[in-house]
Amino acid sequence: MALIVQKYGGTSVANPERIRKVAERVARFRAQGHDLVVVVSAMSGETDKLIKLAREVQPVPDPRELDVLVSTGEQATIALLSMALIQMGIPARSYTGAQVRILTDGAHTKARILSIDEQRMRTDLSAGRVVVVAGFQGVTEQGDITTLGRGGSDTTGVALAAALGADECQIYTDVDGVYTTDPRIVPEARRLDTITFEEMLEMASLGSKVLQIRSVEFAGKYKVKLRVLSSFEDKNDGTLITFEDNPSMEQPIISGIAFNRDEAKLSLLGVPDRPGIAFSILDPVGQAHVDVDMIIQNIGVDGSTDFSFTVHRNEYQKTLDLLNNTIKPQCGAREVRGDNHICKVSLVGVGMRSHAGVASLMFKTLFEEGINIQMISTSEIKISVVIDEKYMELAVRALHKAFGLDGATSPTKG
Amino acid sequence: MALIVQKYGGTSVANPERIRKVAERVARFRAQGHDLVVVVSAMSGETDKLIKLAREVQPVPDPRELDVLVSTGEQATIALLSMALIQMGIPARSYTGAQVRILTDGAHTKARILSIDEQRMRTDLSAGRVVVVAGFQGVTEQGDITTLGRGGSDTTGVALAAALGADECQIYTDVDGVYTTDPRIVPEARRLDTITFEEMLEMASLGSKVLQIRSVEFAGKYKVKLRVLSSFEDKNDGTLITFEDNPSMEQPIISGIAFNRDEAKLSLLGVPDRPGIAFSILDPVGQAHVDVDMIIQNIGVDGSTDFSFTVHRNEYQKTLDLLNNTIKPQCGAREVRGDNHICKVSLVGVGMRSHAGVASLMFKTLFEEGINIQMISTSEIKISVVIDEKYMELAVRALHKAFGLDGATSPTKG
Repeated sequence: MALIVQKYGGTSVANPERIRKVAERVARFRAQGHDLVVVVSAMSGETDKLIKLAREVQPVPDPRELDVLVSTGEQATIALLSMALIQMGIPARSYTGAQVRILTDGAHTKARILSIDEQRMRTDLSAGRVVVVAGFQGVTEQGDITTLGRGGSDTTGVALAAALGADECQIYTDVDGVYTTDPRIVPEARRLDTITFEEMLEMASLGSKVLQIRSVEFAGKYKVKLRVLSSFEDKNDGTLITFEDNPSMEQPIISGIAFNRDEAKLSLLGVPDRPGIAFSILDPVGQAHVDVDMIIQNIGVDGSTDFSFTVHRNEYQKTLDLLNNTIKPQCGAREVRGDNHICKVSLVGVGMRSHAGVASLMFKTLFEEGINIQMISTSEIKISVVIDEKYMELAVRALHKAFGLDGATSPTKG
Repeated sequence: MALIVQKYGGTSVANPERIRKVAERVARFRAQGHDLVVVVSAMSGETDKLIKLAREVQPVPDPRELDVLVSTGEQATIALLSMALIQMGIPARSYTGAQVRILTDGAHTKARILSIDEQRMRTDLSAGRVVVVAGFQGVTEQGDITTLGRGGSDTTGVALAAALGADECQIYTDVDGVYTTDPRIVPEARRLDTITFEEMLEMASLGSKVLQIRSVEFAGKYKVKLRVLSSFEDKNDGTLITFEDNPSMEQPIISGIAFNRDEAKLSLLGVPDRPGIAFSILDPVGQAHVDVDMIIQNIGVDGSTDFSFTVHRNEYQKTLDLLNNTIKPQCGAREVRGDNHICKVSLVGVGMRSHAGVASLMFKTLFEEGINIQMISTSEIKISVVIDEKYMELAVRALHKAFGLDGATSPTKG
């Protein structure tokens, strides 16, 4: 007898047939004696359709009104799932974000949850009802509808689990867990039974799109036991995200390999090596609303140094122009170079903390494949390298093997 | 400088282009210095689409959840219209039924409005904003979403006008007013500049589907000045529904001719003429949830009488079976007859009160066309006859001419 919060994404509730499947799973958990709160997203495609409609009326939609419009997507799903449950003889009741009073700030389209009044849900749970809540949305103190931004339904699920002190928050998605790396690139990739929150944060921010990073942060903050599972099969228990900070003996050094090719690299060569130079380069970039990811500055030689950073590939040309036209003349650099055919590959694992030699094995592996490393950046549980994008798959496969991640169990995808 | 409530139906907001047209009209009224509250329905087709979706999940959808689902239709429209207004530089704010607190009872899918908290709207109006409110929906004391039933958006408009003490409630629809009869049947039909509430009630309930009857009753009760206009053209001021009870000299005797072929006629012949016989016939009909419209019982001759009534055509077979199998044996009637190829034609007009001879002119006109009258029923401002449905158009045209309703102005339809 546990209290479980389950969250189902858009593909899991894409049509009446799939909504029925979700209802069947909820029914199975309920038959085991569990209390259930179910969070759902809009049916897949619905949110995009609504945004398109909005843009036809107002090219840059008013944020308050866009939230009123877009929040109808989840509202439709909660009603349909409740109907499916009631049809199966299971008492259920739906609530919008406003009804269950998910109080947020007033930052429309990207609101933050402030508090949740769990009283109404508890009353329903006590009465034996399944509570179905619209993900992604909330309400301000003034009663205005807000949305939490893309992926906000995960955050709703975790926040409800935190507010209710749920035993577990289960995120159902179209993959059956977190993998050592993307199985489309490395067929040998293995599903992880567990992963730590810190690793998950690094994996998520590095491009493993299983869980919304905000929801992982939220879960970490409120110590919510989070599990990622497939909504299309029940073969395994997915991946549990743990607070285990001390890896056991069996724990591999590396948990997974993340990668992305969304970035571009920019360098200023021959920059005068004097205090404040990093600020004088990056301040104009920030002013231009360009987010910088990796930043590398090597020690200066003969009074000059080289300065490199990466930005999202969409911002490449804009940043390159800025460097050439403004920053280079201002800071007296010799030359500007750019490359938007790079990728970033990262090893992630808390085991790294207690194991030396991870970096050297990584560099050796890439060297043996003839892959040149262009930039390196490290954190306590992550090593990232920037390489030519054409080597991405090769690098990921080689590293996956070198770090013993290739497993016997073949990955399953829904 | 007046406070005007405008209501736009589904066809008026069917797509972004039409929503923009509505915004343009609102802008014109606002430019004249008026304060505006705008009520909108779901985009046409949307409500039916949602109900279809619900039925795929639950053949008989749970009423509470159906309201949660269906209310998303109007919620989408209020957001889109507000966006269109804001895009034109007009400050606007949308509200769902729950947000503006249209408090209803808990009768899901056919709730009744109990009260409206107009404070929030007044604040917006004072700040120069156009207030856009979702029609058709409300909220219970417990915070559950309700809907008012089909045509409920008209009722929302009138109720808001009553709560705010608005100077006028304008119902925009796809016709430009109330006509003396249906222009599709009688091309000479004229638009009425004014019509009384009582006449409008008779016209509406008799099948002139311009205004939802509930909204007319509501307007009558709260003395709301109601006007029906076209949302597709601005050629005239539509039809004003007045409280004028004493027709002026110019007022024609008859305001309009209503008709419908939705009914079927049933008769019990040779019923013993004793007290309680009407009850013994109609009580089983009511128990079977069949609504009865006209009821005719003539004086008894030789201890027996004939009893006739009309029901909706959909209920014809069910009622016929009931009469044959249950009621006839119980009340000892001689014979049951039924006819589902009838129609009802009604003359409506407050002028009738002070003019004798309306009935005789009606009967004479029908006689001259060779049309047999099967049933007659009268009220203070209405005479209805049941005739063979094949004569319907002929009867309506002949009566329209005979009562001087044919006009010079040709009807315009949007």
